[in-house]
Amino acid sequence: MALLLHLTGIDETGWAKGFREALPGTRVFMHTEAYDPSEIEYVFAWRPAADAFAGLVNLKAILSLGAGVDALVSHPALPDVPIVRFIDEEMTHCMSDYVISQVTMHQRLFNRYAAHQKAKIWSQLYPPASHEIAVGVMGLGVLGADAAKKLKAIGFSVNGWSRSPKNLDGIDVYAGDERFDAFLAATDILVCLLPLTDETAGILNMDTFKKLRRDRLIGGPALVNAARGGHQKEADIVAALRDGTLGAASLDVFEVEPLPRTSPLWELETCFITPHVAAISNERSGVAYFAKIIRDHAAGAPLPNLVDRSRGY
Amino acid sequence: MALLLHLTGIDETGWAKGFREALPGTRVFMHTEAYDPSEIEYVFAWRPAADAFAGLVNLKAILSLGAGVDALVSHPALPDVPIVRFIDEEMTHCMSDYVISQVTMHQRLFNRYAAHQKAKIWSQLYPPASHEIAVGVMGLGVLGADAAKKLKAIGFSVNGWSRSPKNLDGIDVYAGDERFDAFLAATDILVCLLPLTDETAGILNMDTFKKLRRDRLIGGPALVNAARGGHQKEADIVAALRDGTLGAASLDVFEVEPLPRTSPLWELETCFITPHVAAISNERSGVAYFAKIIRDHAAGAPLPNLVDRSRGY
Repeated sequence: MALLLHLTGIDETGWAKGFREALPGTRVFMHTEAYDPSEIEYVFAWRPAADAFAGLVNLKAILSLGAGVDALVSHPALPDVPIVRFIDEEMTHCMSDYVISQVTMHQRLFNRYAAHQKAKIWSQLYPPASHEIAVGVMGLGVLGADAAKKLKAIGFSVNGWSRSPKNLDGIDVYAGDERFDAFLAATDILVCLLPLTDETAGILNMDTFKKLRRDRLIGGPALVNAARGGHQKEADIVAALRDGTLGAASLDVFEVEPLPRTSPLWELETCFITPHVAAISNERSGVAYFAKIIRDHAAGAPLPNLVDRSRGY
Repeated sequence: MALLLHLTGIDETGWAKGFREALPGTRVFMHTEAYDPSEIEYVFAWRPAADAFAGLVNLKAILSLGAGVDALVSHPALPDVPIVRFIDEEMTHCMSDYVISQVTMHQRLFNRYAAHQKAKIWSQLYPPASHEIAVGVMGLGVLGADAAKKLKAIGFSVNGWSRSPKNLDGIDVYAGDERFDAFLAATDILVCLLPLTDETAGILNMDTFKKLRRDRLIGGPALVNAARGGHQKEADIVAALRDGTLGAASLDVFEVEPLPRTSPLWELETCFITPHVAAISNERSGVAYFAKIIRDHAAGAPLPNLVDRSRGY
């Protein structure tokens, strides 16, 4: 049995060492090493090159390092084998950390107080309590559900929006396109944790921002995007922050990464930028997760957490 | 039966209206109105003037608007009657909102990314996960216990320090002076929610900061003070932020309020200043809380949530 690592833009050495230790009976190849393609049964992929899957005639499954598989499912020569998504507890934990930090920053009117501090102004305006503010979480997969649950636990009202109805304790779930406007109208802070698909590309646009609730959060509604840059129209975010349609934004992802120095987003004081660091797939937990899946599958168990190609995630 | 309101620096009108509606059988006086001191059985106080209690020979209890009673118990002519503290669920909720927002801000390395944004630098350094960071909550009264519980719920390791041992689910409690250094040595982000007493005045000083754990939080340990300005030595905070003993601070309270424009704290980029807005005693919940206590006490029930004058809180 053989496992091929095909990660581009990431050092494969540590991953290879980890898999070799975790799977003593399996030959593990980095894609830069010499290997016999017909021997490969599993490929562990991140942004695979165009020829990544060439000659893998005995491939049984693709294991995706990223939680988002948009780059993978659009690969022009993707073999017709199951794709296993990485559901990483550590990544989920870090994503919720990021979301909570950004949501509470805007709920507590960070931008206002930062501006006052700069001007040495002492002006007591009390921020709203978290239970007066509704966070709207777009996407209720593993990441969205965890963030929603934790936001609820610390006191926020939480709305969720997803393709299909879900039952989440204490969360007001709006399902489908026909409930999108009602979801936005009940939301003060919008959090995007959607998968990137044809349906969700560009969904963070001016039209969406204009439908958010405006009378609760002083300064206007806020946007937090920790999903993909492809979800957002950055020209619309700039315009919305400038004309007050949005009061604040936190962006961890961008249409082009690294964010070009020419982007006006850098200089907007109401926009907080982080360089795609909300959450990363963790090497140690990734090796443990996929090594177990390979061992179990080789012993006859079904593959878990499969991507539905028709949905695109 | 009569209730006297003696609030200085706060408009009493709304409170008086609220109490009159909630206690139809009780005469309610603002301290600026004419009243017969011998008729007053309850006084509702905030920063009482020197003569606030003059002639109140039939006083049964003092009701304190503030959760902190340091200004009240040091009053030079304080009558020898029970003092009821305000335990306000709304205030507790808002205080935890503030604490969570500031703790997550520092855990997520806000200052680093804000500086990078200003310089248009894209540099991917991953913040630690919340479970890798220990928050140390000083003071485990109603406010401290709620903040500790919520920080635990979103994933942080949480230490607590209090005068006497407490049993809080999932929190490592260090009790007493002899455990203070061990508490600090296990803490990355220090949160002060202590009552202000002779023992706790000035406790946030360089000596304390030097004992915090230094190897977890990139940039150095962080301080969050939402209790009283009297807890902190601001010259030490300035020095600690400048020499790296502290990596960051969030201060909502100050030795002198409003914070003087000459304070160097305003211009420290690693210090986030808010103008004593972490949490405010809420008028509606305050009226409901104290009206019930007055009604119950008049009907023979004991007074709840009494201040222990020997402890000072």
